[in-house]
Amino acid sequence: MFYNPQVSPLYTDLYQLTMAQSYFLNGMHTKPAGFDYFFRRIPFKGGYVVFAGLQEFLQFIKDMRFLESDIEFLNDIGFDNRFLDYLKDFSFKGDIYAVREGDVVFPFEPVARIEGSLIETQLIETLLLNVLNFQSLIATKASRIRFAAGKRVLSDFGLRRAQSFGAMQASRAAIIGGFNSTSNVLASKQYGIPHAGTMAHSFIESFGDEESAFRAYADSFPDNSVFLVDTYNTLSSGIPNAIKVAKEMRSKGQNLKGIRLDSGDLSYLSKKARDMLDYDGFENVKIIVSNQLDEYVIKSLQEQKAPIDIFGVGTSLITGKPEAALDGVYKLAYIEDTPVLKISDNLQKTTLPGKKKILRYFDREGLFMGDAVVLADEVNVDVMINPFEKHKSMRLEGFKCEELYYVAMKNGEINNKPETPMEINERLKKRLHLLPIEHQRFDFPHIYKVGISEKLLRTRDELLLKHK
Amino acid sequence: MFYNPQVSPLYTDLYQLTMAQSYFLNGMHTKPAGFDYFFRRIPFKGGYVVFAGLQEFLQFIKDMRFLESDIEFLNDIGFDNRFLDYLKDFSFKGDIYAVREGDVVFPFEPVARIEGSLIETQLIETLLLNVLNFQSLIATKASRIRFAAGKRVLSDFGLRRAQSFGAMQASRAAIIGGFNSTSNVLASKQYGIPHAGTMAHSFIESFGDEESAFRAYADSFPDNSVFLVDTYNTLSSGIPNAIKVAKEMRSKGQNLKGIRLDSGDLSYLSKKARDMLDYDGFENVKIIVSNQLDEYVIKSLQEQKAPIDIFGVGTSLITGKPEAALDGVYKLAYIEDTPVLKISDNLQKTTLPGKKKILRYFDREGLFMGDAVVLADEVNVDVMINPFEKHKSMRLEGFKCEELYYVAMKNGEINNKPETPMEINERLKKRLHLLPIEHQRFDFPHIYKVGISEKLLRTRDELLLKHK
Repeated sequence: MFYNPQVSPLYTDLYQLTMAQSYFLNGMHTKPAGFDYFFRRIPFKGGYVVFAGLQEFLQFIKDMRFLESDIEFLNDIGFDNRFLDYLKDFSFKGDIYAVREGDVVFPFEPVARIEGSLIETQLIETLLLNVLNFQSLIATKASRIRFAAGKRVLSDFGLRRAQSFGAMQASRAAIIGGFNSTSNVLASKQYGIPHAGTMAHSFIESFGDEESAFRAYADSFPDNSVFLVDTYNTLSSGIPNAIKVAKEMRSKGQNLKGIRLDSGDLSYLSKKARDMLDYDGFENVKIIVSNQLDEYVIKSLQEQKAPIDIFGVGTSLITGKPEAALDGVYKLAYIEDTPVLKISDNLQKTTLPGKKKILRYFDREGLFMGDAVVLADEVNVDVMINPFEKHKSMRLEGFKCEELYYVAMKNGEINNKPETPMEINERLKKRLHLLPIEHQRFDFPHIYKVGISEKLLRTRDELLLKHK
Repeated sequence: MFYNPQVSPLYTDLYQLTMAQSYFLNGMHTKPAGFDYFFRRIPFKGGYVVFAGLQEFLQFIKDMRFLESDIEFLNDIGFDNRFLDYLKDFSFKGDIYAVREGDVVFPFEPVARIEGSLIETQLIETLLLNVLNFQSLIATKASRIRFAAGKRVLSDFGLRRAQSFGAMQASRAAIIGGFNSTSNVLASKQYGIPHAGTMAHSFIESFGDEESAFRAYADSFPDNSVFLVDTYNTLSSGIPNAIKVAKEMRSKGQNLKGIRLDSGDLSYLSKKARDMLDYDGFENVKIIVSNQLDEYVIKSLQEQKAPIDIFGVGTSLITGKPEAALDGVYKLAYIEDTPVLKISDNLQKTTLPGKKKILRYFDREGLFMGDAVVLADEVNVDVMINPFEKHKSMRLEGFKCEELYYVAMKNGEINNKPETPMEINERLKKRLHLLPIEHQRFDFPHIYKVGISEKLLRTRDELLLKHK
């Protein structure tokens, strides 16, 4: 089984290791440092991102060790022996403060804060970005598809179009974002998530005709058969044959579970199929559709009142098309007690210095109103300021707030009980319930406000001045 | 290390296993069958696809076995014990005929033909698609970027934006498509491909100033230092500090290898940087750029004659943006000796039946002229016909041709010596040399002709008639 939580520490960018060696040789590697994980842009033109991947990432770094063969490889490519001796006993022993998995998060706020020695916080950067960026992307996409699908069933059919082994984490994130099941059997085993499947055209073709194929499948799965009805002609052949075999099943006390449409106009065909099934008393037979679905196609099918029970979504979900990546970054915020920043001509690319946390404010109705990024020692703030347009601010006095961080890892140990992807989705549902609907619509969603405290603003501006 | 060629047979769609059980219980599982792997659309609006992933896929299925825990899981979710007994000893023992990895391929031609028992050919479908679709996508993207970059050096910097563990196969495919190196250390170890890296902004920031940071890095890597010059201000601070430390290195007989620009206008800044470096006699110091590069940005930088030596490409390469997936499918072509097809209202989605192979024809100059998909027992054809517009045909009489398939796997055993990604790229270079340049341009490339033989056309049309 390729899927093993023991991830190699070589699964990183070369420069992490060269910088680590330089820190080590210059005696700087044990300096305490803090990094922020944040992103700058919401994918899919959406109004929020679903934070996902944290639990897996924590498990990966907890178990991460350099093997003998890793050290040999690094030696072969020229790393220093003193540094390699150090790596032999290396493990991550730092602390991680983070927003909970399944919460909604927004641009420029530090979704996680990573503290530890300079060398250990640097060495986990690439893996953190690799896992959190991707799972958050897919959970966000899944959440959008869930928004379009309402209460209909959603199944992940993406494995064959996934970016190779990225499929595993994508199937997990799909459940976090609101999918009900996956076709990926290993993901079902690995994560304990529900599995689903139907049949392929090849199954029909290998029997030569639909009737024999449906009958044989029903014999094998009397309680759990879904017939694929578009191999030859959906309305004149597929559905009539499905109904014929469904009647045979009924006479034996069995129930056909569903039919699947995989081509053609899914609105037109699902309505015709529903009529034909209902005419013969098969009101309980579900209609499952697949074929290039995404949130927009599903929204359109819903608006046309297509009587579809289950949507199977592949490529668009599993690859997070068309974005394909979340632009999350990992930036040094302080070293020892000194806040630091990266400067850019573009203020949006200048980082927020210092040890920070996030306060989420609630409006009078108890809904999310805005997030304030504040210094870690601030308890509450009266006002938050737009970090890029200082003349814009928001009064927060008198409004309730909560801290978004929890201690996810302490001294390299995971600090909470593992949650299933379904449990994480329960959290997401509660959080989306508190996020005003204007932030959830597809077209030009209302922009959720993220500001910074006056103290943080001052810290940044003083540092900017110092470097000029 | 998570990366292990032992891939679980549960890494598949549930329906492969339910269909397999039904074949087994109906006594059909040992029937000989043949499947085709092909795609319908070239990604990136390009003129060709680079076939990649085959060698890894062969390795994966060669070693694929059901573990005790897999059988237990399948038992838990309701599979039949007789079928599970069969799976305990299952391994793929079929044959695979395929185009060589690194060749250029085109829509609708069967890039690989998989033969074996119905059950074994069905059980490998999902993994085949998962691996070949993705690696071919990325090799194709990499090849486009290579086309734009000419002879400049290309390095894969994508790990942090990759679709989680998809990064490994992507880094391999990037080399196949024409990249020179990767930042992914594990991919370098795993595949023996060259590695590359520079430094991050956090390195500079943790020293507090550029000069100290550059000096410390140069001490650690006197022969192999690349300084990142845009942490504070590229022209007024980063490059002057780099030159200052480079002079110190020169006085010790060391050579600075390069500087990296990661923001701003890369054309403007690279020209300024080149002038500043040359002024102080650093003509050999390379200029490396990164930041949201793709084939179009690189093409533009080349047209502006930006003096860039090395391009580091991330997100767009590693995820194959904006397509993010190749639409490859795996379709039953025959069972026992009977050709079969899947019908669709759209003729383009109707499959090509029977046991087939590909003949590639050469024009008088020895360049690729067109590919004919023919039945396996045909040796040469005088004419090929457009499979969807029968009035279009092409005379082939008197032109030389070659068969594109080789025997990649025989009775479940891999039939050739493993090749490195660099060796596969050598093949690609030779093949692209034979592909007329009109098929390689970015905008509206000339469409390469793929036709079918008269015999194959007849086979398909007879079957179509039979089903109507």
